[in-house]
Amino acid sequence: MIERNAQDLDCNTDTTQVEAALYLFPVPLSDTSSLADVLPSGNSRLLKGIKHFIVENVRSARRFLKKADPSIDINTLSFAVLDEHTSPEDVAPMLAPLSEGHPIGVISEAGCPAVADPGADAVAVAQRKGFKVVPLVGPSSILMALMASGFNGQSFAFSGYLPIDSGKRSSKLREMEQRIRRERQTQIFIETPYRNNRLIEELSHTLPGNLLLCVASDITGTRQNISTRYISQWAKGGYDYSKTPTIFLLFS
Amino acid sequence: MIERNAQDLDCNTDTTQVEAALYLFPVPLSDTSSLADVLPSGNSRLLKGIKHFIVENVRSARRFLKKADPSIDINTLSFAVLDEHTSPEDVAPMLAPLSEGHPIGVISEAGCPAVADPGADAVAVAQRKGFKVVPLVGPSSILMALMASGFNGQSFAFSGYLPIDSGKRSSKLREMEQRIRRERQTQIFIETPYRNNRLIEELSHTLPGNLLLCVASDITGTRQNISTRYISQWAKGGYDYSKTPTIFLLFS
Repeated sequence: MIERNAQDLDCNTDTTQVEAALYLFPVPLSDTSSLADVLPSGNSRLLKGIKHFIVENVRSARRFLKKADPSIDINTLSFAVLDEHTSPEDVAPMLAPLSEGHPIGVISEAGCPAVADPGADAVAVAQRKGFKVVPLVGPSSILMALMASGFNGQSFAFSGYLPIDSGKRSSKLREMEQRIRRERQTQIFIETPYRNNRLIEELSHTLPGNLLLCVASDITGTRQNISTRYISQWAKGGYDYSKTPTIFLLFS
Repeated sequence: MIERNAQDLDCNTDTTQVEAALYLFPVPLSDTSSLADVLPSGNSRLLKGIKHFIVENVRSARRFLKKADPSIDINTLSFAVLDEHTSPEDVAPMLAPLSEGHPIGVISEAGCPAVADPGADAVAVAQRKGFKVVPLVGPSSILMALMASGFNGQSFAFSGYLPIDSGKRSSKLREMEQRIRRERQTQIFIETPYRNNRLIEELSHTLPGNLLLCVASDITGTRQNISTRYISQWAKGGYDYSKTPTIFLLFS
């Protein structure tokens, strides 16, 4: 009987003993990309040792976990949802497993948790309570767009979405132009895909022709296209980014 | 004889045929990290099909290539050096292999090429000439520090090193504080390791106690430590980051 237990324990040793910490797991940006192309294999090994997850969307997190480790038994895992509807007071209780010595994984819908997504709230609570936080390597559309733009990587700013209100929007664009000229700071922002074409058109009309615009589309996907051109060149049209997640970068 | 050649060709098919493009290969941030923990295996597969490299430092690039693919024959590869001493007019000729249909890899000393490093110049030329640029996934200390800080990932700026001149330095710090308050923009910057402790001391004396400072040190290394505390807590001392590469982040 004792021997049998010992054997069972032996079998379980490939479920790695993972130190209690908040692990931030990036996920692929594109459905079409192979995990081996966008994530270190170490991430999947680490996942095997974690039972508690804070996720932006349960369905996509389950799909990712199954892809990362086909042998995983999803039913033994616990999922807490942290999305834009979660109220701040509900975040701290999600970290309870950490207090009991269990590791927690954070998984977003796409890309790196806590960058332009709700995971940051869980990290903030973990930091406040003195828990260890471990970021893992994976695809970030912002960083990969910056790498491939040819723009200044010594100074850059990411601003999320431009304001919708037209007055605020044009003053934001003026401010970005100033920061490019005065601080040599690359300006990075995003738009919802169905508005991408309209945004490029708008930038073509609003900004000086000698500014450079990089349009970085479907990063790591099959239709990946990262093009840096002068505003005056974009003004000529001949593009269609209406269906792909896209990052925009400005510089001179 | 013909058969023999055919066999030779067969043997060479595991040297993948890689499309002509400028590939940006991240490298580990720390000597102690295993490649499987910080790089997708797809990157190494891609490396096998590339003969021409633009590198920040030949010695460290060779070491990385040997680690990524122990079977690699370094002597069959060509290396062009692109570092802070390279003059701008010497960059374009480095892309000659691309015009002849051969892929080129860009390799920095640590982290992601073209982010806070000279590779950006090669990317800018490639974009200007209309060559395809492909960023690959790997560790970025800036992005990983941001993920683990718990700070705003919807709006952030990286400023490189703070100015040395004390007047410019304190006006830069004031400006960062304003951008935190007005724009909710996370402020990210770096310092040379031997000055890290002095910088934290300086920030403790200069900035309001209720600002948050995240110190992200030795990311992916054995001494990795990412701690977010109030300035008033850092002011009490009890830290030593004098020997590890460290990223600093401010937020409120």
